[in-house]
Amino acid sequence: MKKIGIGLLGLGTVGSGVASIINTPLGRHPLVAQLELIGVAVKDLKKKRDLAFSESILTSNPLEVIENPSVQIVIEVMGGIEPARSLIIKAIRAGKSVVTANKAVIARHGYEIANEAKAAGVYVLIEAAVGGGIPIIEPLKQSLGGNQITKVSGIINGTTNYILSRMDKEGANYDEVLKDAKDLGYAESDPAADVEGLDAADKIAILSGLAFGGPIKRSDIPVKGINCLKSKDVDYAKRLGYVIKLLAISERNEHQTTTKDSLPLSVWVEPTLVPGEHPLAGVNGVNNAILVEGIPIGQVMFFGPGAGSGPTASAVVADILNIAGIKLMGNSNSNLDPLLSAESWRDCYVAEENKISKKNYIRLITDDTPGVIGKIGTLFGQRKISIESIVQFDASNLEAEIVVITHQITKGQLNEALSDIKNLSEVKDIAASMGCL
Amino acid sequence: MKKIGIGLLGLGTVGSGVASIINTPLGRHPLVAQLELIGVAVKDLKKKRDLAFSESILTSNPLEVIENPSVQIVIEVMGGIEPARSLIIKAIRAGKSVVTANKAVIARHGYEIANEAKAAGVYVLIEAAVGGGIPIIEPLKQSLGGNQITKVSGIINGTTNYILSRMDKEGANYDEVLKDAKDLGYAESDPAADVEGLDAADKIAILSGLAFGGPIKRSDIPVKGINCLKSKDVDYAKRLGYVIKLLAISERNEHQTTTKDSLPLSVWVEPTLVPGEHPLAGVNGVNNAILVEGIPIGQVMFFGPGAGSGPTASAVVADILNIAGIKLMGNSNSNLDPLLSAESWRDCYVAEENKISKKNYIRLITDDTPGVIGKIGTLFGQRKISIESIVQFDASNLEAEIVVITHQITKGQLNEALSDIKNLSEVKDIAASMGCL
Repeated sequence: MKKIGIGLLGLGTVGSGVASIINTPLGRHPLVAQLELIGVAVKDLKKKRDLAFSESILTSNPLEVIENPSVQIVIEVMGGIEPARSLIIKAIRAGKSVVTANKAVIARHGYEIANEAKAAGVYVLIEAAVGGGIPIIEPLKQSLGGNQITKVSGIINGTTNYILSRMDKEGANYDEVLKDAKDLGYAESDPAADVEGLDAADKIAILSGLAFGGPIKRSDIPVKGINCLKSKDVDYAKRLGYVIKLLAISERNEHQTTTKDSLPLSVWVEPTLVPGEHPLAGVNGVNNAILVEGIPIGQVMFFGPGAGSGPTASAVVADILNIAGIKLMGNSNSNLDPLLSAESWRDCYVAEENKISKKNYIRLITDDTPGVIGKIGTLFGQRKISIESIVQFDASNLEAEIVVITHQITKGQLNEALSDIKNLSEVKDIAASMGCL
Repeated sequence: MKKIGIGLLGLGTVGSGVASIINTPLGRHPLVAQLELIGVAVKDLKKKRDLAFSESILTSNPLEVIENPSVQIVIEVMGGIEPARSLIIKAIRAGKSVVTANKAVIARHGYEIANEAKAAGVYVLIEAAVGGGIPIIEPLKQSLGGNQITKVSGIINGTTNYILSRMDKEGANYDEVLKDAKDLGYAESDPAADVEGLDAADKIAILSGLAFGGPIKRSDIPVKGINCLKSKDVDYAKRLGYVIKLLAISERNEHQTTTKDSLPLSVWVEPTLVPGEHPLAGVNGVNNAILVEGIPIGQVMFFGPGAGSGPTASAVVADILNIAGIKLMGNSNSNLDPLLSAESWRDCYVAEENKISKKNYIRLITDDTPGVIGKIGTLFGQRKISIESIVQFDASNLEAEIVVITHQITKGQLNEALSDIKNLSEVKDIAASMGCL
């Protein structure tokens, strides 16, 4: 049987992992043995490498790989926006299906790329772009289509989850753990994309598009990272039975009018208090987990390693096998499989931030005088905001710390209430405000 | 566009759920709107039903549905071994792809059915047979093929997990909770298939075949249910930091020679102590979760509702959409997609029970005299069995309860040690013995 030619753009952590799977097919699905690595593009040909394949297929020119007529599937694992985006489009225009792990490109240019793929009649698969090795993209496409999806939420950044898990377990502070994470290779030397929540926002943009059937604008997503999180809030959350996780959420927005043709979604990234018994609460370290809610399925969760060479390579190879399987069906004139190609079928947009509805955790620093809790409670009441709990924590130096947990309210209602509260003479500072499940 | 004709055999909980999804396509994947319910076979035409479709498509003759030329996909959701098995085979021979939720048929006759499907060039998909709504069959086929799978384990029976969760949380005893489970509809009036572990064994047989690439004999699987479990063991496990779950496990057996062509697997169902921090420990109530381990992915877990009309219907419709998607590619002369058809590609067999290797929890009732723990420890030592802990619990009436947790040993080693221990004059009874993660 003629093998299926694979071209690899990039031979870093993920690329090497992919090459290693293709070159050791024993014990894997027999389709893996049908794959053949034809060309591998690298930045620096002179770099010393421990290759599992013949050096002769290395090139420093990615176009050589893309244009090689024996290459049927192009794997983009170089990362970064450019030249990755242009090369993906070139591969599509050359009639090659593409597999990519590049969440930054897909979150920003996914729509353009999907249109190119549709026009060329090829697949662009992205399982590795979200959740590392966890099968989540393929289940969303291939296993959950019978549902009206209502919400996708999850822990989709391993670096921040490692930091938060240690802050929770050890009571350590943020800067200290971030330093360790860098030393251990869990965080980049410039950790901004992770700790500011930008990476999670890329990923929720992608998940949202697949779950709800239409792309959203990445730049419309409000994002708050963990870089301003205080260990004090981790501690208070714990005492109240919660653990703080950086959640990325996309759900149907009920406060904005749905037109027949366009679905408003509340989409955001924010450190969030998760109740101890919630399935996401036990997801620790560099693990990721994605919760999908829909009708009639209820709630399903996908859990596993959110990053790393092996897991991510597993996801890339899954995509390759899906395309290879269809190629081996032996009909090049057929249409695309509508589940695997996952064309968008509905317009979606990010609703106004003020219309996001959620429970909130608010920490106030106030004078340590009697009656403060009453005044705060009254103000929320005047705004018709129900409160789940108000608790006073440490009092010292005439200051008190008061934590309020609200019931579900819109961000607009919350902002109005907070501006009232700021005007109370006893309130010195609104020291923290974040979401709560 | 011509719609894809669906024939339904059975209109119970799952069948009604499937019909309901097909008849309300709004907000679901647009492929759902391409499905059309052509015929529905029921046992009793006279039964009063609240139908979401025209009564005229009901029939009491399943062959009418199977043989209807407009029916392209046959959905078997009647349950039971016969006539379900024969009807599945008749549908295959009529050239129809089949979707079934029938774990009992697939666990016992899966090989025969797969061979029929191969000969006829049709699909038989079974997502709903394991784990209710949880996507696990499709991810095993479509998302994990790049891995060398080493182990599949999980909580795959909701009834027993409900009972165990309540025994753990409330310290309630088995009979009491079983009665409640019956009253709530979580357990059948004859709960044997669930509480004796038979249902879980059906399901692990199916998962094992897909994960390792070859079917095993259902009847070779050693099975121990929860029907003999004492609340005392649940309590002791808890005090040691464990929770007891009914686990079904299939893993590569390292103690039996692997021939090039045949892979020995340790497969068993047993109440098992799960450490509190393990991902399966937090799976409570009627939820299910399946853990898949492989190289290079590491560990991924799939969690969700293990039963119920809506979740199971979601899984059935997922299968329908996979077949419909391929049909809409518009080439009837092509081969089957090798990922979706999941033909077996390796011989597997269930290794001897004595060669299953695991940690063990053993509860002994002994005389309450000094030196007993020493004697027990010495006996294990003579058998070269490492012990993780020996703890004495309640002592009363001159009796003591001693719990031993061993390191990983084979069942053969364990049996030898237990027969030594039984001969100690101080040991009155080996009151419990089960697995431990």
